[in-house]
Amino acid sequence: MFTSVAVDGRGRVGGAIAARLHEQGLLSDASADLVLLCVPDTAIAETAQALPVGPWIAHVSGATPLAALAPHTHRFTLHPLQTFTKARGPEQLDDAWAAVTAEHDEGLAAARWLADRLGLRPFDLADDRRVLYHAGAVMAGNYLVTLHRAASRAFTAAGAPPQALLPLIQRTIDNGFALTGPLARGDRTTVEAHVTALSEELPDLVAVYLALAEATVR
Amino acid sequence: MFTSVAVDGRGRVGGAIAARLHEQGLLSDASADLVLLCVPDTAIAETAQALPVGPWIAHVSGATPLAALAPHTHRFTLHPLQTFTKARGPEQLDDAWAAVTAEHDEGLAAARWLADRLGLRPFDLADDRRVLYHAGAVMAGNYLVTLHRAASRAFTAAGAPPQALLPLIQRTIDNGFALTGPLARGDRTTVEAHVTALSEELPDLVAVYLALAEATVR
Repeated sequence: MFTSVAVDGRGRVGGAIAARLHEQGLLSDASADLVLLCVPDTAIAETAQALPVGPWIAHVSGATPLAALAPHTHRFTLHPLQTFTKARGPEQLDDAWAAVTAEHDEGLAAARWLADRLGLRPFDLADDRRVLYHAGAVMAGNYLVTLHRAASRAFTAAGAPPQALLPLIQRTIDNGFALTGPLARGDRTTVEAHVTALSEELPDLVAVYLALAEATVR
Repeated sequence: MFTSVAVDGRGRVGGAIAARLHEQGLLSDASADLVLLCVPDTAIAETAQALPVGPWIAHVSGATPLAALAPHTHRFTLHPLQTFTKARGPEQLDDAWAAVTAEHDEGLAAARWLADRLGLRPFDLADDRRVLYHAGAVMAGNYLVTLHRAASRAFTAAGAPPQALLPLIQRTIDNGFALTGPLARGDRTTVEAHVTALSEELPDLVAVYLALAEATVR
């Protein structure tokens, strides 16, 4: 579909994508059939406006709408649903999913083609659903980091080794996120004891604990 | 240390423990050197009181204090830090950690001996720190289930496949819980857009989203 792709922005995501396109013989440093914007979300609109109309253009942001790519009309978005680190390379893309959005079939075909070349599994996402989708991605990915930090702090305060949490977290995933523990048993006494202990030792975690307790029971 | 262990209670945890003790040739259905209570937390004190004083006694609850084992004095607690399912067997214990608590060195030695026989990695935990420790375990394990459910609901509402979350969750763990995404970037615009989208589509998730956003930034 495309014979050359230019990547604008080499942060964590752009670096991995450029490396994969290089592997595929598709990376271009000059003119290209497709310009892929991997710049910060806030820079997408300005960068798009500065580019001459002609080649296809796309961005890799999760929540940014297609309209940010104006005035270009041959456009799509492809959001790799993954967390990236500069310590790793293009293999970070392998087996991750990617949300693809475009106004027309041709744009969707272009997005799916790129996902395939990058090693991503694409799924279609409506432009006006991208923010809701991205909120879900943040909850599953970023807030897992927050939960782990909160739990590690409670362990450290209790004198327990935070690394002991890892087999529990991994098995929770491997068991298909089946709920066990005091909330599954309706054990309000234990939950109230948790809140009391957190109030005394780590009061800033009480709000998170309670909001999640309510969401769990609901 | 012990030549026979009786297990009282064969729920998810008790079933896995009894199966492992059977493998080790230690399980007794009659008299035993050690009676291990795997009954519900609320039944521990009553069950302990009904048992004749003499053999060692222990429970496997996370938050319940040693005192629940009165009037017995040869006692300890061993909490396997893991989530269990009846669909699996004693291998569920392998490589999980276990919090062990006792008043004296002899009790700690007994608890560590049992952990070793069960395939668990023990760490000492003070009796008055058990509730705080258990609150941390609930946040890391049970609340991961809650987060996954919330994220899956957002994905479903957006028309995205919830199974696409799995590689993201797994990599977040594999990358050592490094924070990326809008909160790591200080991108308040995206966070506010998330809250607006959730308010419109899944208003019951707004409180969880905001509590975790605040905890993340803090």
